[in-house]
Amino acid sequence: MRMYDLITKKKHGEELSKEEIDFIVQGFTKGDIPDYQMSAFLMAVCFKGMNIRETIDLTRSMIDSGDRLDLSAIKGLKADKHSTGGVGDKTTLIVGPMVASLGVPVAKMSGRGLGHTGGTIDKLESFKGFSVSLTDEEFIDNVNRIGIAVIGQTADLCPADKKMYALRDVTATVDNKSLIASSIMSKKIAAGADTIVLDVKVGSGAFMKTFEDAKDLAEIMVKIGTGCGRKTYAVISDMSQPLGTCVGNSLEAYEAIEALKGNGPQDLMDACYTLASYMLIGVGKAKDINEAKLMLEGTIKSGAALAKLEEFVAAQGGDVSCIENVDRFPRTEFKEDIIATEEGYVSEILTDEIGMTSLLLGGGRETKDSVIDLSVGLKIRKKIGDFVSKGEPFVTLYANDIDRLRAASARVRSAYRFSAQKTQPSKHVLGIVTADGVTLY
Amino acid sequence: MRMYDLITKKKHGEELSKEEIDFIVQGFTKGDIPDYQMSAFLMAVCFKGMNIRETIDLTRSMIDSGDRLDLSAIKGLKADKHSTGGVGDKTTLIVGPMVASLGVPVAKMSGRGLGHTGGTIDKLESFKGFSVSLTDEEFIDNVNRIGIAVIGQTADLCPADKKMYALRDVTATVDNKSLIASSIMSKKIAAGADTIVLDVKVGSGAFMKTFEDAKDLAEIMVKIGTGCGRKTYAVISDMSQPLGTCVGNSLEAYEAIEALKGNGPQDLMDACYTLASYMLIGVGKAKDINEAKLMLEGTIKSGAALAKLEEFVAAQGGDVSCIENVDRFPRTEFKEDIIATEEGYVSEILTDEIGMTSLLLGGGRETKDSVIDLSVGLKIRKKIGDFVSKGEPFVTLYANDIDRLRAASARVRSAYRFSAQKTQPSKHVLGIVTADGVTLY
Repeated sequence: MRMYDLITKKKHGEELSKEEIDFIVQGFTKGDIPDYQMSAFLMAVCFKGMNIRETIDLTRSMIDSGDRLDLSAIKGLKADKHSTGGVGDKTTLIVGPMVASLGVPVAKMSGRGLGHTGGTIDKLESFKGFSVSLTDEEFIDNVNRIGIAVIGQTADLCPADKKMYALRDVTATVDNKSLIASSIMSKKIAAGADTIVLDVKVGSGAFMKTFEDAKDLAEIMVKIGTGCGRKTYAVISDMSQPLGTCVGNSLEAYEAIEALKGNGPQDLMDACYTLASYMLIGVGKAKDINEAKLMLEGTIKSGAALAKLEEFVAAQGGDVSCIENVDRFPRTEFKEDIIATEEGYVSEILTDEIGMTSLLLGGGRETKDSVIDLSVGLKIRKKIGDFVSKGEPFVTLYANDIDRLRAASARVRSAYRFSAQKTQPSKHVLGIVTADGVTLY
Repeated sequence: MRMYDLITKKKHGEELSKEEIDFIVQGFTKGDIPDYQMSAFLMAVCFKGMNIRETIDLTRSMIDSGDRLDLSAIKGLKADKHSTGGVGDKTTLIVGPMVASLGVPVAKMSGRGLGHTGGTIDKLESFKGFSVSLTDEEFIDNVNRIGIAVIGQTADLCPADKKMYALRDVTATVDNKSLIASSIMSKKIAAGADTIVLDVKVGSGAFMKTFEDAKDLAEIMVKIGTGCGRKTYAVISDMSQPLGTCVGNSLEAYEAIEALKGNGPQDLMDACYTLASYMLIGVGKAKDINEAKLMLEGTIKSGAALAKLEEFVAAQGGDVSCIENVDRFPRTEFKEDIIATEEGYVSEILTDEIGMTSLLLGGGRETKDSVIDLSVGLKIRKKIGDFVSKGEPFVTLYANDIDRLRAASARVRSAYRFSAQKTQPSKHVLGIVTADGVTLY
C-alpha cells in the first residue's frame, strides 16, 4: 500500500477500506507517513468527505493508536458528557454533581480552554488548590468513594488524534465533520464511559454556524458512538449568545454554585437538565426525560447536588469556602459597566466576540503556554430579546489591568446589536439526536 | 500575511493577489513555508483552480525565484520548442536542424526522460561522445556559430518550480492545469527564447487524455507566454499511438536522421513541419504556414537540415559517423518480432504501455538515478488503421537482456487492440492555439 495512491483515491472521492484507513493513521502516528502527504490527504478529505463507515473506522484506528482508560474498577455504568465548545458553558460543574448525587459515577477527563472558549479544568481551578493531576488509582478511588472525579488529558490517549489535530490546525483542514467527529469521539470512547452525552453548539459562538451543520455533526457522532458500542446522545443547543450570565473562570464557578443553590438562569438550567437527563437515561437510572428531570430537580431542592460539588472539590484539594460563601472568590481591581447609548432590544450577540473580550481581559489563552487570570471576565446583563434603556448597563467587565479593560470595553460594545423592534428571546435546547433519530424541540 | 489564511482563501475558491502568490512561492522556496502547508495549499488548488491572472502571477513568481538565461549575446530572435511528453517523440532532433539551417537561432535547454516518456538529451547521447555540459559561453558561441545548441537544465533556473514539483510528485497534486502550465512555462520563459512553440499531446500516451483537457492546457500556456511578452503557439497533437515508428533512444536518433534524409513517416513529418513553421512565423522568418512549410521542405530536399544536424552533433563532441551511415549505431544482442495470432485492423494502441515496454527493455528511467541502455527499444510496424494478417509481425523488440525481452514481449502484446472492422488511421495535428484563438485541423 502506498500513501500516494490513497491520497489519489480520496482526491477522486472514492471510499477507503478499513485497512487503508489503518495504514494512514498508524503510519502517520509512527512517522512513516510524512506531514506533507498527510496534509494533502486531509485537504482531500475536506473536499470529498468520508462516509459513516470510513468515519467509524477512522475513529477506531485513532483509538487503537494509543491507550484506553480502564474504568472497569469503577462500580456501575459510567456516564460522560462533552461539549463542542462555547462561551459561558459551565454545565460540567452543575451536571457532574447532580448526576453523581443520584449514584451515577462520573469519571471525567477534561481539557483546558484555548482561544475564545473556556475549559472545565480552568473553571475548577478557580477553587484554590484544586488539582486534576490524580494518579489513575486516585481517580478511580475518588469516583468509587464520592461518585465523581475530573482529570486532565493524559498523553497516551489517541496520539494519532493529537498529531493529526496539530497538523489540521496549521493547514486549514479543521472544518470537516468526519474529522471533527472522529477527533472528539476517539478521545471520549478511549476515556471509557458507557454513556456519552454530547452538547453540540450552534450559532455565533460555536464552531457550527448553522443548525443543519450542527445536526449533521451530532448525527455523525451519535453513529460513531453507537457503532463503537456506547450509548450516545447529542443535544443540539443554541450558542447565539453566551450560556447563562457569566463568562470567565471564577465568575462561571460562582454561577455554577448559584445554579446548584437553585438560582440558575433559565437557559443554563435547560442545558443542564437536558444533558444530565440523557446521562441518567443512558445508564438506565431514569426511563424518560420527565422522570429524569424530576429526579434532577430533586437534587437541587434537597441540596444534594451542592453537597456533592463540595465533596468533589475538597477531594481534589480545592478550597470549598467560596462554595459556602461566594463572596470569598477573589475580586478584580476594576469593574466597568458598559452603558447603552440608545434604547432598544438586543437583537444579536456576536458570541465569539464576547469570548474574545474575556480573552483580552486575560481570562483565556492565546497560545497553549499563556498564563491566565482566573478572576477576570464579564457578566452578560442583557440577552437576546431584552429591552435596554438609554444609560442602562448591558454588560459588566471585571479586570485587573487598565489597558486590557480599555481594549475589552471597546470590543464588547461591537459584539451587541440592538433593534428598535421587539426581538424574540432565543430557545436554548434545539433538538436531541439519539441512535433512533432526531427530535426537534 | 499568514500561509494559513492563504490556504483557507484558496480552499474557499477565492482569488489570490499577486502579493499573496509571491508570499507563497518565495516563502516556500526559502523554506519559511513548510512542505505540509504547501501540500495542503496545492491540494486546494487541485480542487478550486487558479484563474489566468493567478496562473500568470504564479509563473512570474517562479521565474523570479531564480536566474534567467541571458541570451542577449545571441544575434537575432531565438525560437524554442517544448513537448508535454510523449512516446517516440524525436521532433527536436529534426525541427532544430531544419530551423537552424534557415538562420533562426535555436538555443535550447532540454531534459532527460523519466518514466515512460523519453528525453531529448538521452536521444542526443546516442551519438557517442555527445555532451550537453557546455559552459554558458560555449553554449552562446555554438548558437552564434552554428545556429543551434542544446544544454541540460541548470540548477538555478526556477528553483521554486523544482521544489514545488518534487512535492507535487509525492502528494498527488500534479494534475492541475494551472500548476502544470506554470511549471512548464516558467522554465521556458526563464530559458530566454523570444518565440516558444509548445507541443501539447493528447491521448493514451499523454498526460492529457481528452482533447478538451489538452486544448485548455494549451490555451493557458499560450496566455501565460503572451502575458510574459513571448510569442507563444501551441500545437495540439495526437498521442493515441507512438509518433513515427521508433521508440528507444538510438532507434529514435536513427529515425530522425532518416527523416532529415527525406524518409520520415507522415505523422512525424506533419508534427515537425507544423512545430517548425510556428517557430519561423514567431520570429518573423515566414509570414504564414504555407510559406514556412515550403522553406522547411527545402531544407530537407537540399540536405541543409541534415548537414546542420551533423554540424551540431560534432560541435558538442558527438560521433557523426552514424549520421553518414546509420548501420554504425550499436546493435542489440536480441531482436524479436511480435506476431499477430489473428488477423485484424489495429484499433487502439495503449501508448503509455508502449513507453513502459521500452522502459522494461532498459531504455527508460524508473528513478532519476537509473542507468539506461541507449540501444534498446521497439519498432512500431503497424499503426492504428493498419491491417495485420495472422502471423505477421506488428512490433519488433530490440533488447540486450533475455529476461527483460520476455517481460517486454508479454507487455507489448497487451498494448495492442485489434478489430475485425476496418478502422480509421488517426490524424496527427489536431489544432493550433495562438494568442488570437484556437484553430482546429
